[in-house]
Amino acid sequence: MANTELLIGVDLGGTNMRVGAVTEDGKVFHRLKLPTNVELGLQEVVEKLIKTIRQVIQEAVSNGDRIIGIGIGSPGIIDIKSGIIVSSPNFPQWKQVPLKQIIEERISIPTFLDNDANAFALGEKWLGAGKDVQSLVCLTLGTGVGGGIILGGHLWHGVNGMAAEIGHMTVVPDGLPCNCGNSGCLEMYASASSIVRRIVIALQAGESSAVTDYVNNDLTKITSDLVYHFALKGDSLAGKIMHETSIYLGIGIANLINLLNPEMILIGGGLTNAWDLIYPDMIQEVHKRAFEVPAKRVKIVRASLNDNAGIIGAAGIAHLNLKKLSKYIPS
Amino acid sequence: MANTELLIGVDLGGTNMRVGAVTEDGKVFHRLKLPTNVELGLQEVVEKLIKTIRQVIQEAVSNGDRIIGIGIGSPGIIDIKSGIIVSSPNFPQWKQVPLKQIIEERISIPTFLDNDANAFALGEKWLGAGKDVQSLVCLTLGTGVGGGIILGGHLWHGVNGMAAEIGHMTVVPDGLPCNCGNSGCLEMYASASSIVRRIVIALQAGESSAVTDYVNNDLTKITSDLVYHFALKGDSLAGKIMHETSIYLGIGIANLINLLNPEMILIGGGLTNAWDLIYPDMIQEVHKRAFEVPAKRVKIVRASLNDNAGIIGAAGIAHLNLKKLSKYIPS
Repeated sequence: MANTELLIGVDLGGTNMRVGAVTEDGKVFHRLKLPTNVELGLQEVVEKLIKTIRQVIQEAVSNGDRIIGIGIGSPGIIDIKSGIIVSSPNFPQWKQVPLKQIIEERISIPTFLDNDANAFALGEKWLGAGKDVQSLVCLTLGTGVGGGIILGGHLWHGVNGMAAEIGHMTVVPDGLPCNCGNSGCLEMYASASSIVRRIVIALQAGESSAVTDYVNNDLTKITSDLVYHFALKGDSLAGKIMHETSIYLGIGIANLINLLNPEMILIGGGLTNAWDLIYPDMIQEVHKRAFEVPAKRVKIVRASLNDNAGIIGAAGIAHLNLKKLSKYIPS
Repeated sequence: MANTELLIGVDLGGTNMRVGAVTEDGKVFHRLKLPTNVELGLQEVVEKLIKTIRQVIQEAVSNGDRIIGIGIGSPGIIDIKSGIIVSSPNFPQWKQVPLKQIIEERISIPTFLDNDANAFALGEKWLGAGKDVQSLVCLTLGTGVGGGIILGGHLWHGVNGMAAEIGHMTVVPDGLPCNCGNSGCLEMYASASSIVRRIVIALQAGESSAVTDYVNNDLTKITSDLVYHFALKGDSLAGKIMHETSIYLGIGIANLINLLNPEMILIGGGLTNAWDLIYPDMIQEVHKRAFEVPAKRVKIVRASLNDNAGIIGAAGIAHLNLKKLSKYIPS
């Protein structure tokens, strides 16, 4: 491969940053993955990001290829027109960060920014489980619950570019307080971190689980994967938490079906490791609550691009913007 | 007016049917309004509908005008491609009624069918409060809670034509059972009929209200307007029911804002008579729950076409289909 036009895709996650060079038909090269280390602060994270992007660019250029654009998928509220991270629950210290401008000043390649969940949706539509599907709603169940809505083949950004905040749909009116200021958000019941939070609350309230012994009473060591594995082993509290997760995820999905009647609901993120445990209760709740015809019609599937979804989707943001293949902000 | 192309708009409501002839710029002529009398059964309602449509057509034709199409907005689940009323909570006996075919066989004018709330949204976008707005979510708070979603200027029908069932978004997971089979639907808390239902449940459970004396202990005589008026007078139970209505409406609207980030939320239907009472609590709840930027951006307004909204919207269905002005089913 040489003399090929490549796009840099940057998946700036709360836990890891992933950078790769992507061909126009979606092949990923020179992939790097580093911990984000949010605790180091904005400046350090941005420097690490720039260094990583430059490293990928150098590898591509030394192969004889050309980089035509950079796409970044970032968690949080993104002003997509000006390329600013307005705020992000996963980067609490970051406010109004003009990331597009910073990258373009330092790297001199056209850079485009969007919400990471929109990027994820775009990637899965481009090359993943959502290929050939025109209307799909994507959810990412990770540190938070992200969403991307594709209708009639186009990402629906909303009038401020802030649509698809599916994680902040209220599913329990008097539920757990969320970082966004609301209470009872889907994110408080269907994210990986919410599983940890809810089991810790239960343990601190005196309920018991074998997880406690496993982490030697250090509740900060509990992970959602641990809760999942103890649920599989029959631990009652872990099972209850996972069941609750499935039910509220089902409620959220039923709402999406009744509201948008999409062809597909596509689910990614770390919590899909527990897919086999979550799916049966979730799907039962969906059919209990959603209208029959749209509930039967919709395919509810796992994301297929896995680790590369974020990079491909982020590259897709740059691709769409550079090629004007789509009216990118259809409001 | 003579030699003008007119569209017949039919607003087939659970309580009244309204028929009128509409010009391409939205003026309504020869308007008729009759009680639907659902209790008489499908056959009688359809005969009355045909008779009413014919009456309007005759008046138009005797004026020298031509009828080029008929649009019908009907409550319930509509198969818009084949023009069938699949089912309707407001017409519980009606299943798979091929209304398009029936009307075309009897009247020989191209006929198009859509959900009444979609028609309402179309009408308000065409000539009402949603004029010049490209993304708006419409709610009708009447016998049920209907919805219409217009994104980027187009009605979003979903893959089965069943999108925008906003009334069947779950807002209370363990809430009141709904006719649709779900429980805790927005319709159970924000429709006019739900207000009556909830106050009757409270009265039967031993709570008291001055409404009871007013209807001489005949609880079947309670209407949502009565509850509203007693709430205004300071009746505690009536006030509580109206407050609850505002809160759940606010939760539903906050969800729509976080999901779709629209320019406008437009609210119509009988319950908007109580707008001044509902609005303050509703808007407070919206700002408590929705993201700040999209919540500040969205205009939350009352419908403006009032009684004519349904007729104009229904005519708009025929207009869009006949003129192919828009890709009517954008899935």
